Amino acid sequence: MLFNFLNPISASILAFLTSLLIVILTGKKFIAYMHSWQHEGQPIRECGPKSHLKTKKGTPTMGGLLILLSIIFSTLLYAQLSSGFTWICIAVIVVFGATGFWDDYIKIKKHTAAALTARIKLLIQFSVAFAIAIFAISQFRENIKFSVIIPYINFPINLWYFYIPFVMFVIAGTSNSVNLSDGLDGLASGLLIPAFGYFFLSTLLTFNFAPLGNLSIICAATMGACLGFLWHNSFPAKIFMGDTGSLALGALLGTIAVLCKQEIILAIVGIVFVIESLSVMIQVFWYKRTKTRVFLMAPIHHHFEQKGYPETCIVMRFWIVAWIAAVIGIISLFMQSFGGN
Amino acid sequence: MLFNFLNPISASILAFLTSLLIVILTGKKFIAYMHSWQHEGQPIRECGPKSHLKTKKGTPTMGGLLILLSIIFSTLLYAQLSSGFTWICIAVIVVFGATGFWDDYIKIKKHTAAALTARIKLLIQFSVAFAIAIFAISQFRENIKFSVIIPYINFPINLWYFYIPFVMFVIAGTSNSVNLSDGLDGLASGLLIPAFGYFFLSTLLTFNFAPLGNLSIICAATMGACLGFLWHNSFPAKIFMGDTGSLALGALLGTIAVLCKQEIILAIVGIVFVIESLSVMIQVFWYKRTKTRVFLMAPIHHHFEQKGYPETCIVMRFWIVAWIAAVIGIISLFMQSFGGN
Repeated sequence: MLFNFLNPISASILAFLTSLLIVILTGKKFIAYMHSWQHEGQPIRECGPKSHLKTKKGTPTMGGLLILLSIIFSTLLYAQLSSGFTWICIAVIVVFGATGFWDDYIKIKKHTAAALTARIKLLIQFSVAFAIAIFAISQFRENIKFSVIIPYINFPINLWYFYIPFVMFVIAGTSNSVNLSDGLDGLASGLLIPAFGYFFLSTLLTFNFAPLGNLSIICAATMGACLGFLWHNSFPAKIFMGDTGSLALGALLGTIAVLCKQEIILAIVGIVFVIESLSVMIQVFWYKRTKTRVFLMAPIHHHFEQKGYPETCIVMRFWIVAWIAAVIGIISLFMQSFGGN
Repeated sequence: MLFNFLNPISASILAFLTSLLIVILTGKKFIAYMHSWQHEGQPIRECGPKSHLKTKKGTPTMGGLLILLSIIFSTLLYAQLSSGFTWICIAVIVVFGATGFWDDYIKIKKHTAAALTARIKLLIQFSVAFAIAIFAISQFRENIKFSVIIPYINFPINLWYFYIPFVMFVIAGTSNSVNLSDGLDGLASGLLIPAFGYFFLSTLLTFNFAPLGNLSIICAATMGACLGFLWHNSFPAKIFMGDTGSLALGALLGTIAVLCKQEIILAIVGIVFVIESLSVMIQVFWYKRTKTRVFLMAPIHHHFEQKGYPETCIVMRFWIVAWIAAVIGIISLFMQSFGGN
């Protein structure tokens, strides 16, 4: 707002640096405060690896709060507040952040890792996602408003009114997938950087549709906040982002994908999130049918831990896969702009 | 060469993915081979932290060989072989890589961490750097050929013939600085990614001078190789890059900075390398004068280790500083293109 005389590139760079520095510089005090407030810290998932019960106990959670506040601050500072796109993103951060916060809060105070019932969480997620779907439809031209675009070949497929449940599935699905991926030090925050990096480039290069410039700024702010969070969250983590962070950042990612009609490519760029989710679904489905397990433990990052890979090694390799996925996504951008070259 | 009908962006993306995948996919076999060939592995610096003698012993070195080969392969595949810029970069990789290899080889076979005499190393470095200086001068217009450009304000300063020793200092200095930074798992390779990332963007955006497109491709290939190397080299490292990698990659970075007349901004983008070098100089200078130490140990990453920070935490924070530096560098690009906005 203050700085909206800047072009989207300059504003994005400043938004990135602003949220990055906020998280790095205020992190130490924030962690100390959270530590004293949470005493024992978040109870570690009882169905996770046994070693985590020891090594990760006592680490405070809700670090997502710092991430979200710094994103909102940078957005208010640099994005155009006259654009509906800006406010939809802020609303998503606030509502999903509040849901996650509530969840984290119950976990801490009741000292149990199973908190908000899944049903209430899903209800909130789908309600907000429905509102976003309606907004998204209102923003696009008649001929593509109900369509998903197949990337690389740029072919639109009209889903008719099924587009609405599809959007709801994308947003709630991304939110929950990022939440599932948040199980090793620095994993989720590091995976989100290339994903938002892709959408940063994508919205920046789509200059023919001005409101997307605001999305670039929000993506840049999110990248900065996540990178800053790694200052404190990478192995050995001093704080976790918690559901506060993962539900909100996942929902924001899904929302941005919907707002620039790139739902399909989100599945490519966010391939690690997709794999994490699928690993849980496959595990549950298979166990119910055959009483045997496909993975030693789900989500899949715990599978590799059980196989003896060091935590830092799994995290780095998942990050690298995410960066490859982002670059493969970027190829689609140039196939749009230059027509196949 | 094969693919030089591609534009620089497409070629860069493919060069990035090619060298990345080569390093990831052939890494396991390469490491196994190096392990069996080197038996005991590189002797760990005796003046480094004591804990390294235990934890890092037996890890093979010369991983830089794999990095350099994959960069050369990608360059030959995608860059224009008619451009002198391409061949200068390949020559730098080969000569500095060979020097480093020789150094590593002596270390392994003589089982001592002090190898090639510093004098011979410097002589080779300065000779090659001299040749690059002459080449660089020949490439630029009369009015700026002996000038360095002050970034952000784009002000050229004519160094007259002192430009030649200046270039030699930049290239040999960068080579040795990257070498010094290569002391923690994943540190040097992770620091090189944002540095080459800056020069990738910089050379890509300078479309008015076509040969720089080849430098973009080489930068992208180097980023891919370094990211791929992190697959094996991040904590806990299965292989080190050794002098083979660090001397060559540092020299390549310095050379590219010289070839696009961005020597000054290299000191900003590579601020971590500068700090690492300065910490050694300050330590040595101060110790000689006062017999007291400024840092608990130099280079500075060992200082933080001695202060009790976990290795992974130091590496991540140094990486983050390097990314911030790269983004600050990127600001200069837009001040060139858009004239101050």
